[in-house]
Amino acid sequence: MGQPADNLVKNAVGRYVPEKVNGKTVIPYQGVGRYKPEGQKHAPAIPSYADYPSNGDKRVSSLKEALEKAGISDGMTISTHHHFRNGDVLANQLFDAIYELGVKNLVWFPSASFPCHEHLIRYLEDGTIDHIEGSMNGPLGKYTSEGKMKGTGVLRSHGGRYQAVQDGEVKIDIAVIGAGCADPFGNSSGLYGPSASGLLGFALADSQYADKVIVATDNMVEFPCIPWQIQGNYVDYTVEMDQIGIPEKIVSGTTRITRSPDRLLLAEMTADFCEATGILRDGFSFQSGAGGTSLAAAEFFAGKMREKGIKARFARGGSNKYLVNMLEEGLVEYILDGQTFDLEGIRSMRDNPNHVWTSPFTSYNYHGKGNFAGMVDVVILGATEVDVHFNANVVTHSDGYLLHGIGGWQNCLFSKTVILPVPLFRDRIPVVKDAVTTLCGPGELIDVVVTERGIAINPRRTDLIEKARHSRLPVKNIEELKEEAEKICGKPSAPELEDELVAAIKWVDGTVIDAVRKVKV
Amino acid sequence: MGQPADNLVKNAVGRYVPEKVNGKTVIPYQGVGRYKPEGQKHAPAIPSYADYPSNGDKRVSSLKEALEKAGISDGMTISTHHHFRNGDVLANQLFDAIYELGVKNLVWFPSASFPCHEHLIRYLEDGTIDHIEGSMNGPLGKYTSEGKMKGTGVLRSHGGRYQAVQDGEVKIDIAVIGAGCADPFGNSSGLYGPSASGLLGFALADSQYADKVIVATDNMVEFPCIPWQIQGNYVDYTVEMDQIGIPEKIVSGTTRITRSPDRLLLAEMTADFCEATGILRDGFSFQSGAGGTSLAAAEFFAGKMREKGIKARFARGGSNKYLVNMLEEGLVEYILDGQTFDLEGIRSMRDNPNHVWTSPFTSYNYHGKGNFAGMVDVVILGATEVDVHFNANVVTHSDGYLLHGIGGWQNCLFSKTVILPVPLFRDRIPVVKDAVTTLCGPGELIDVVVTERGIAINPRRTDLIEKARHSRLPVKNIEELKEEAEKICGKPSAPELEDELVAAIKWVDGTVIDAVRKVKV
Repeated sequence: MGQPADNLVKNAVGRYVPEKVNGKTVIPYQGVGRYKPEGQKHAPAIPSYADYPSNGDKRVSSLKEALEKAGISDGMTISTHHHFRNGDVLANQLFDAIYELGVKNLVWFPSASFPCHEHLIRYLEDGTIDHIEGSMNGPLGKYTSEGKMKGTGVLRSHGGRYQAVQDGEVKIDIAVIGAGCADPFGNSSGLYGPSASGLLGFALADSQYADKVIVATDNMVEFPCIPWQIQGNYVDYTVEMDQIGIPEKIVSGTTRITRSPDRLLLAEMTADFCEATGILRDGFSFQSGAGGTSLAAAEFFAGKMREKGIKARFARGGSNKYLVNMLEEGLVEYILDGQTFDLEGIRSMRDNPNHVWTSPFTSYNYHGKGNFAGMVDVVILGATEVDVHFNANVVTHSDGYLLHGIGGWQNCLFSKTVILPVPLFRDRIPVVKDAVTTLCGPGELIDVVVTERGIAINPRRTDLIEKARHSRLPVKNIEELKEEAEKICGKPSAPELEDELVAAIKWVDGTVIDAVRKVKV
Repeated sequence: MGQPADNLVKNAVGRYVPEKVNGKTVIPYQGVGRYKPEGQKHAPAIPSYADYPSNGDKRVSSLKEALEKAGISDGMTISTHHHFRNGDVLANQLFDAIYELGVKNLVWFPSASFPCHEHLIRYLEDGTIDHIEGSMNGPLGKYTSEGKMKGTGVLRSHGGRYQAVQDGEVKIDIAVIGAGCADPFGNSSGLYGPSASGLLGFALADSQYADKVIVATDNMVEFPCIPWQIQGNYVDYTVEMDQIGIPEKIVSGTTRITRSPDRLLLAEMTADFCEATGILRDGFSFQSGAGGTSLAAAEFFAGKMREKGIKARFARGGSNKYLVNMLEEGLVEYILDGQTFDLEGIRSMRDNPNHVWTSPFTSYNYHGKGNFAGMVDVVILGATEVDVHFNANVVTHSDGYLLHGIGGWQNCLFSKTVILPVPLFRDRIPVVKDAVTTLCGPGELIDVVVTERGIAINPRRTDLIEKARHSRLPVKNIEELKEEAEKICGKPSAPELEDELVAAIKWVDGTVIDAVRKVKV
């Protein structure tokens, strides 16, 4: 259903966005750094020690009991997090319990959703869940894109999610936090246990600002659960469960670098670019995701660093065995980790004090007194589409289907240099286009697009253009890249979309940067 | 000056307390767990990343410049913390700078004050500081007790200070945090550097809730300052200074157990009591302060634990070399540390993951969803006076002088068993009396008073009375103890006090449990 395309306004990047989303007034995107929040952070009710068990034991017998004690009722916003990734059993159990309680019209506010949450489509169908505010990957994205979700989806970056909760834009009634280990008081972490996920940082805002907080674990330990990532002092109820996650789907035992020659080429070109332009210098910092190309780029970095005898001050980002190797080899002094992707990452985070936990608050929150993203020298990100103004899309495919979340992507755009290594086309559909289907990141923040047929540098980055001029890098104009793509694939046709809006895309400051339309089916 | 004793009301422990303190309405103490806060936590203004340097470098050239940028003006509340204890150089420099700026009528809100802050009396005299909200140890206590401070002092426990800031009862305009090390972004810790103090937990509330936060350090390190105890995302300005603390006065190189036979006897009796009543069992937990008797009690615990082959699950509290020895010997599984008293404590906190940082939020905040204090099996505390109803005083001497802060004392009263080992008299003045000069802790929370001439158990603790009955412990009625004291010292005369109020004593929930009167001089 989504919502009709009424009362649209043109925002600062020329996109038509709704004035209201799910009946609530929203602010159209006004440009980078233009919208200044007024007002106060969300102020949770003041609790009293007298209302909690003085021995610190907050255990209740089941998730259902915890939900009832927390006063679950129709229309509430229920939050979960995505640390279990595609091995999340808890969120599905949660909504099974809610369904049994007969509660309706909920807003589900996950930090991300995964294909395993296809199970929840039944609850979108029967009115248990009105809509999802969070990424809609895979089946839920398809469901949403086809206009089947009752309310309108809202997609936020990891930092934007923290911002929305902190600012009271989203008021969480009940947060359910799944933890690899926890104590009866609610101190919890993702470092130990069968459902160990590494970090619990995506649940930080939920713990701090939700009305009621439930911690569920399949590994209850005696107080104190050390080290705690979530503080029990924010927790109302704790629940011991048989299973909350599927270990092999939470973290992969083996992260693999891409073997695709095309993607390896992109990664190598990216590293060459960083070398030629002096970004790769002693004491630099970088962030690269867990995707195949990004992983490969980090490996090329490692090679160059060894060669030059330099090291990085820190690497930000999702950790994995390659990054851990760099830390242990001394190529990187610190990993500032936001999400742990494999078992080696968890081991390192557990044992190495230089493998540091971070959170969306420290790294990404735009409504903080600064954050870490801007301190990173270079970040390597993916995109589904880029346009000739360097605007980029990360949530929809060229056919209009909403199949990815934003993750930390928007937040990382504040890095000193943002590089998108992307293939010039995918399945014979150009990636570099006149206009992106959905605009997630404004071109002024995207510095370099690396394709297998050339590297385009944003004209705003005269410094990089100057440095690249003296290199052998295949620098091209972004229009040239687009034309090359069209020469090979033909002019791409626009996706077939209805007027109806199925989702809004928030910018890091809570404004609406674009809207996603229903796909014609 | 303080304030006239007008409009007093009798509170739930029979003390007459003012309806207003410094012109602001306050709530009289209503009994343990009786006062339930309504309303919301303090909500700071929402900042924007756009207003902070994108490279994360928040350095300004001087403390004065930071204060000016933070908009310091008359009547503001300026907070500091007491991690530097009697080696604090920063707070004195701070008010020197404020004096130079000509700002008046400030409220100084330290987490505690020390004799070194005698320097600030000039600023109390000249109207730079109107009054102090925080402990007034030594010279500042004398100054206050003699009615010389313009406004009325307000004393809070460590947990009460967190509560007051969290609840907006005290709104901090500018917080100044001194850190052993910090990076230009404001991430900071007390673990390294010449002014290393161990922990910075007392500044946590200030960082989270103050309008403007300044971090000062004499040891600026490159980003990231790892591990951070204060998060730079809460910090507005950072300042590099020549010296902020005097190392040998911040932490002692050598903590010493009392050699006084009287105090050793009290410590041994305390440990014997815990053994006889079964408190000292495998997996138990305890907290004992850094005072001589408390340290000695912990040593007697250690001896008994070795003998019995048992260990403690955790020890709470200020850490010192004795506690660190217990941790390293395996007698204690975890130290949950709130304040580090010596160099061995800092070393252990730095290197041993089982030496865990805590804060007034985790351990003491009464307006949290529980806290750690209630989970501690036994706590050993001091007192200046105890009455026959087990009410105790920790802030004034029997002559009425306000010479001590509350520290964590009130918060620790929520432990499962509270023991006060105190001499029956000091300087021929009875410690056990008909009524305490200042009531800081209600008798219902105090379980045992251990004196060299007998142990009194609170009649409410029938379980302990029953257990002690079968022991050789010299259990007596508290009236008997009082009479013995009076037999030796004579009936103590009440301190000579004026009507005028010089300070209010807050309970852990923000209500006023007692008032301190001006001493006749």
